[in-house]
Amino acid sequence: MAALLYTENHEVPYYECDVTNRMTPAMILNTIILISEHQNIELGLGIDFLDKFNLGWVVVQYEIDIERMPVMNETIAISTQATSYNRFFAFREFWIKDSNGETLVHVKSTWVTMDRTARKMVSIPEAVILPYQSEAVKRMPRLKRPTNINESDDLIKKPYQVRYYDIDGNGHVNNAHYLEWLTDVLPMDFLTTHEPKQISLRFENEVQYGHMIESQVTKPVESEGSMVTHHQIVVEDTISATATIEWRSRVE
Amino acid sequence: MAALLYTENHEVPYYECDVTNRMTPAMILNTIILISEHQNIELGLGIDFLDKFNLGWVVVQYEIDIERMPVMNETIAISTQATSYNRFFAFREFWIKDSNGETLVHVKSTWVTMDRTARKMVSIPEAVILPYQSEAVKRMPRLKRPTNINESDDLIKKPYQVRYYDIDGNGHVNNAHYLEWLTDVLPMDFLTTHEPKQISLRFENEVQYGHMIESQVTKPVESEGSMVTHHQIVVEDTISATATIEWRSRVE
Repeated sequence: MAALLYTENHEVPYYECDVTNRMTPAMILNTIILISEHQNIELGLGIDFLDKFNLGWVVVQYEIDIERMPVMNETIAISTQATSYNRFFAFREFWIKDSNGETLVHVKSTWVTMDRTARKMVSIPEAVILPYQSEAVKRMPRLKRPTNINESDDLIKKPYQVRYYDIDGNGHVNNAHYLEWLTDVLPMDFLTTHEPKQISLRFENEVQYGHMIESQVTKPVESEGSMVTHHQIVVEDTISATATIEWRSRVE
Repeated sequence: MAALLYTENHEVPYYECDVTNRMTPAMILNTIILISEHQNIELGLGIDFLDKFNLGWVVVQYEIDIERMPVMNETIAISTQATSYNRFFAFREFWIKDSNGETLVHVKSTWVTMDRTARKMVSIPEAVILPYQSEAVKRMPRLKRPTNINESDDLIKKPYQVRYYDIDGNGHVNNAHYLEWLTDVLPMDFLTTHEPKQISLRFENEVQYGHMIESQVTKPVESEGSMVTHHQIVVEDTISATATIEWRSRVE
């Protein structure tokens, strides 16, 4: 039996869009997480419930496939299901569809449960996963890992300070901001003429309020007919996130 | 006869809130502008219509009175009316109410019409204002002007770079970001323990993509029983926005 599917409509406001009136990658993450939180609440698995276990769900990795970015004022349907899990990992999928039911964006994500006090990963208690009717599996689906940047790569770099408003109600930097730093570093004329086709994003170490982070990216190069960039977020010598983005030229 | 009132509900998602789960001042601006844009479209006065006149509406000044900030997951009703106008200025009000009809936030704003090519203010054509049933007035309501910062003031300063995602579909920096820079500069322990009671915000000169701006604020001091801070956004020697914010202590 397939895991429970939860769907909600979302009308994309101008302030979730970029200069080309397309939804930003960061807002894709914000809205899908909102919808998964609504499913959690519907199933009685919201923050209050997790409080009893002193647990929080943490995303380790995303693989985002984009057919087309939603545009300003478009009403999209966002669906999610907690597809499968094993002892330590849960696999959750999201689909963003247009009004004709065409899939615009498909997101695969890997999650772990973290003990809030110890800030350590713990095995997933059955009580917090069974109500999703997730499939118990031995091997988790493999998400595409971002390619590491080499010392010798020709990089574009930009510093960003972690701001007060980057911190969410859990006291942590909202994951969507990593994607903002990762992409904002690219030149404006590149960003207005390309859109992401696939984003692989992996979180390694948390950044904190006040940190000065550096967003680093390889210069965009044509590779087998498409543009690919490799990214990392660095705080001093620690890598806090990595990403590989495949781009297509934007068609007006 | 009073101007036409337009109302829409909005459910506040977590990503429009700060670490205390209250809606951010910037998101107050984003959502009220969204609702006024929806009224424009309903009355046939959207961007397409303004295109014919080569005009854009530009906010000069806001005065925001806050009884209480909306909180995460709260459903608020946002109303707006284009209350009154004279030859050069239009006065628009907004109200944010809770589910009991209590006013949480009242925003007064002054607008001008700008010729898009010349980037100059022009007198307001009747065609773009009459359908709101705004009252023609001789004298516009006076909004409280922000207090200027003095050379001798003891200031907190922080640099911010204008980012790609700060630019909206009109090619300009979304006004809400000014409010983000203006408030983010304050220390985190001040922001988590205070909330704005009144914000006077005035736009002077536009900032551009790539600009390094400096947000400057006077150190918070008690004045007649409440905290007041004076703010400015500076690009090199040019002031691009000023604000005065009155704060109250947050009650949990």
